[in-house]
Amino acid sequence: MDRSDIDVDTPPASDGRPRLVVCVAEPEANAFFPDETRADLAALGAVTWCQPDDVRDADSFAQVMEHAQVLVTAWGSPRLDAGRLAAARDLELVMHAASSLRAVTSDDFWATGIPISQAGAAMAPAVAELALTGTLSLLRRTHRLDHALRSGAGWDEARRVTRAREIGGARIGVIGASRTGRGYVESCRALGADVHVYDPYLPPDDALRPIATDLDTLLSGSDVVAVHAPATRETAGLIDAARIATIPDGAAVVNTARSEIVDMDALYDAVSSGRLDAALDVFDDEPLPTDDRWRRLPNVLLTPHVAGATVESRRRAGRIVVDEVRRHLAGMPLEHAVTRAQMERMG
Amino acid sequence: MDRSDIDVDTPPASDGRPRLVVCVAEPEANAFFPDETRADLAALGAVTWCQPDDVRDADSFAQVMEHAQVLVTAWGSPRLDAGRLAAARDLELVMHAASSLRAVTSDDFWATGIPISQAGAAMAPAVAELALTGTLSLLRRTHRLDHALRSGAGWDEARRVTRAREIGGARIGVIGASRTGRGYVESCRALGADVHVYDPYLPPDDALRPIATDLDTLLSGSDVVAVHAPATRETAGLIDAARIATIPDGAAVVNTARSEIVDMDALYDAVSSGRLDAALDVFDDEPLPTDDRWRRLPNVLLTPHVAGATVESRRRAGRIVVDEVRRHLAGMPLEHAVTRAQMERMG
Repeated sequence: MDRSDIDVDTPPASDGRPRLVVCVAEPEANAFFPDETRADLAALGAVTWCQPDDVRDADSFAQVMEHAQVLVTAWGSPRLDAGRLAAARDLELVMHAASSLRAVTSDDFWATGIPISQAGAAMAPAVAELALTGTLSLLRRTHRLDHALRSGAGWDEARRVTRAREIGGARIGVIGASRTGRGYVESCRALGADVHVYDPYLPPDDALRPIATDLDTLLSGSDVVAVHAPATRETAGLIDAARIATIPDGAAVVNTARSEIVDMDALYDAVSSGRLDAALDVFDDEPLPTDDRWRRLPNVLLTPHVAGATVESRRRAGRIVVDEVRRHLAGMPLEHAVTRAQMERMG
Repeated sequence: MDRSDIDVDTPPASDGRPRLVVCVAEPEANAFFPDETRADLAALGAVTWCQPDDVRDADSFAQVMEHAQVLVTAWGSPRLDAGRLAAARDLELVMHAASSLRAVTSDDFWATGIPISQAGAAMAPAVAELALTGTLSLLRRTHRLDHALRSGAGWDEARRVTRAREIGGARIGVIGASRTGRGYVESCRALGADVHVYDPYLPPDDALRPIATDLDTLLSGSDVVAVHAPATRETAGLIDAARIATIPDGAAVVNTARSEIVDMDALYDAVSSGRLDAALDVFDDEPLPTDDRWRRLPNVLLTPHVAGATVESRRRAGRIVVDEVRRHLAGMPLEHAVTRAQMERMG
């Protein structure tokens, strides 16, 4: 759908229908809401579409939120602080089309008790799949082979890259039985990998319990270590220099979660020495500077924090938004509501 | 195992045990035959290990083959022409540890009726897996993203690479229901892809029949086209310029089979224009020249004809060699014997 198709006028308040405000920047709004999903949302109420940058000042925000019961947010949407909350007097639900709620919430927001829900479930399969792509790439050395052939290496020189390993039988250590971690475990096992998981909060009756182990056993016994833990106070620096040193020579680290969980200096040392390979979607410095050290290593596969960003994940998120708003308006329980305590744990 | 551990002396002929000659170049011999497999082979008879380059001349070959019943070959082993066959008077079985028999056989060899067997089954899972790795990489655009970040693109510029697609629901068209094709189909389906297959020789009762289609329908309806056909007279140029033009914009081509099947000039035009992406393990010119045009495209993932070369596939091949030699010596039917007609079809 073209920008010109988007209704940026505030619909009249007098029609008695619920009023919804979608405050999501382009091009994501079109990715979340293809025509069919947009029509389904419009069937639930009078929808005002606005760009976050157009409603940053208090007056614009107050105007667009007048009589609105539902606010749909995503990356870049204005933080719901005391001033904006005062202007959104009829707000009953915040529906975040993305995952992390930290940027849109505040102490004042949580104090209101207004329910907030998010579409992180939509992104989990995409993140798990990028981790799988990195895992296969690193095991098969496609990153090293491709980089060698591009940097002018001779054919035979490129073929001397350390021989590839298959995922069938590979020992894969997963840190965090999160939604993405579970999706990744499932895919790796479907391809024959020998998967183990570390998660201190795994319930005793969890289906992953038989493959659960402690962190140090996991790290020292893995051909691939994949990080799927949330960034919390507890996980910050979890994979520190001492632990990185226990990962076997020739193994690979895949991080599609958060860089804070890994000591990136220690990882850099291990990767730049050639001892470990890595597939990284997250970095301490984002945006990654153009001259960043990570951009020069032949044995790392780099992606710019896009693990959750697929055509399909955006569409799934749009569907979750529609379904969750429908539930709210029908007085049914939300399926993706998040409490403040849950947000802290989710990172 | 170190080269110094390898027995290069011809064992005495008088011990009555079967005599086996393994004529496989290092480092592949060690990859095929780790200690355990080597011991199993030694249990079957008196094994002479030799390097192909050491037995190219007639006298050396005759000497090493004296009284030998079994010859184990691989890439680079001497072709069995009339002269060499005359020198190998006791030869009963040729066991090729690799796949294609063209380089080791000759008209004279086929005329002898000596059985020949090969270990192509060992490589099929590895080839299928590299095709899967390329498929995921291209769908998720990791090649473009990684190349952008390495070539100095800004973070936001790199993030503007066409949005990734997931393999779940992706339309994957497989050309050739070969062993590798079948393995690839299985993996893609395990990850939720919508897979179709073109193979003119698919039996009516084949398990893949429900997803079989004609070539033109396959090409025009695929997000990823994966080539798993043999290189034969029939498949040469099968994917020609006209057919490449019917592959949808934004789709990807994965070729881990043979370049002759694809019009590489036409594919180059489609890839260099940005219309298609490609993951290529095979090329018209191998070794690929250091200044080859393919090495400069940001939207291609390059590997130097290594699809079948994994640690695991080499070990599987070594096991097949041992098992097949054991069957022969015990008078049991071979499981991987190949006739001349089969070789022609296998490419």
